[in-house]
Amino acid sequence: MGKLALAIHGGAGTILRSQMTPDLEAEYRSGLESALRAGWEILEKGGSSLDAVEAAVVSLEDFPLFNAGRGSVFTHDGRQEMDASIMDGRNLKAGAVAAVRNIKNPIKLARLVMERTEHILLSGDGAADLAASAGVETAPDEYFFTEHRWLQYQEALAAGRVQLDHSKPIGTVGAVACDANGNLAAATSTGGMTNKKFGRVGDTPLIGAGTYADDTCAVSCTGHGEYFILGVSAFDVAARMRYKGLSLEDAARETIEHQSQIGGEGGLIAVDSKGNITLPFNSEGMYRGYVNNRGMNTGIYSD
Amino acid sequence: MGKLALAIHGGAGTILRSQMTPDLEAEYRSGLESALRAGWEILEKGGSSLDAVEAAVVSLEDFPLFNAGRGSVFTHDGRQEMDASIMDGRNLKAGAVAAVRNIKNPIKLARLVMERTEHILLSGDGAADLAASAGVETAPDEYFFTEHRWLQYQEALAAGRVQLDHSKPIGTVGAVACDANGNLAAATSTGGMTNKKFGRVGDTPLIGAGTYADDTCAVSCTGHGEYFILGVSAFDVAARMRYKGLSLEDAARETIEHQSQIGGEGGLIAVDSKGNITLPFNSEGMYRGYVNNRGMNTGIYSD
Repeated sequence: MGKLALAIHGGAGTILRSQMTPDLEAEYRSGLESALRAGWEILEKGGSSLDAVEAAVVSLEDFPLFNAGRGSVFTHDGRQEMDASIMDGRNLKAGAVAAVRNIKNPIKLARLVMERTEHILLSGDGAADLAASAGVETAPDEYFFTEHRWLQYQEALAAGRVQLDHSKPIGTVGAVACDANGNLAAATSTGGMTNKKFGRVGDTPLIGAGTYADDTCAVSCTGHGEYFILGVSAFDVAARMRYKGLSLEDAARETIEHQSQIGGEGGLIAVDSKGNITLPFNSEGMYRGYVNNRGMNTGIYSD
Repeated sequence: MGKLALAIHGGAGTILRSQMTPDLEAEYRSGLESALRAGWEILEKGGSSLDAVEAAVVSLEDFPLFNAGRGSVFTHDGRQEMDASIMDGRNLKAGAVAAVRNIKNPIKLARLVMERTEHILLSGDGAADLAASAGVETAPDEYFFTEHRWLQYQEALAAGRVQLDHSKPIGTVGAVACDANGNLAAATSTGGMTNKKFGRVGDTPLIGAGTYADDTCAVSCTGHGEYFILGVSAFDVAARMRYKGLSLEDAARETIEHQSQIGGEGGLIAVDSKGNITLPFNSEGMYRGYVNNRGMNTGIYSD
């Protein structure tokens, strides 16, 4: 029997107090709080961790300031391509989509891959076919467009950067939860990297890298995706708990320390089946929050 | 200082003596031996494990009986889409491609992703763009066509199977090696599943799932890819060695036992930095072989 717990993130990176206005900070916090409430409502009514993480991620996808769903960044050729994955720790099932366009909530499509296909990861047109046949809600390009992402893209194009812009937060959103039955689930969604090459797949849709859940823990990562792939970081937390006997907090800390060793920047959120929560990161900030029976918390900076 | 070691596989599944003719068996064994020789020549001359696994996989891709490169299976809409990945344990770098077409040797393109881009996994048109700009060798559809794969596809279409055909071997090829410096590398390549849906990505191009190498071990998996993704099986071998202190053989055995527990069928090949080799599988057979200073061995059946 687990204690109810939900944690979310809205991306990690160089987030400095000096670059933030009070109004913008309040807006970010309200986005985080809305997502926490959306997931918590489900957990409180006895709903599953799977439903809770999906609802929290949908809320984060809908919020235009985070790089997922609405507000996703632009690829090198000016498109918005999104990735998402979800994993149900209760039965070790998972679904994911890569490089989907015009899907209002990519996390919902990832869940359909899990529930309606024999596959785990569908990319591009294959995922679009499933979306069309299942009647998944789409949205026009204008829905996803935000001016700040367009400006980031224009800047990156001008500078010839096909990499992360480390002066901006590294965008991903995610949620992990423990429900009343002690079942765990994790979900992650992203618009990827500004000015990324067409066809680049990061860690977000990769089970084990960006997302993982079993009966030990549920993990969602955010950061420089290539390093989280090399570290197999979401699964690595579970492996350190299961094989080394570490606590959730120690395992997650070691995973992020390994990221620092190999040059990766970012963070993760994780819960275990006792409702413990940890949110370590090695970047200058991470949009994050959690809620349990003792209350709700959000954070942005590293101090 | 490692002892030279190279292991390869050409897929796992239900491979029964009763369905094999002496001629066909000899052909399979010659395909395995050619690949072993291609990799071993490099190791013997002091070459890197990375070059050795690439050469071995190129040889397996070129051999029409294995499901990779030439001889790949057909997707649901009659195309041949290939996936491949490679990882250099020496510096924890990796590259991978998913859903590429008309690339003669997908493993070479995976290596280019590792060496020439800041990304790890490129899919579809993005990978094709890189191939074109780097002048990677392409081949027309006829090159990849083999009659037995076409017949498998027609059978699967008629039966409405979008899944693995368990009466046929599950096709993937792979290689792992330890070179004279004790450096490890792994490579895996596949044509995927017969009659698979367009856009399905299996474990082969996913670092941690189908392929993994660090300074502990190098692993290449073959089998029902979805389960190897859920098990994060290639990295799981390394995690069991590193975090539980298991030997290569025990770690790999436990990983395959876990596959059996969750319903996955297949096998893996692995080497460690002392040149130990293990090739466990839970299917009725696995095309496999290894070579070290004591000689060369190939195997097909489970007994």
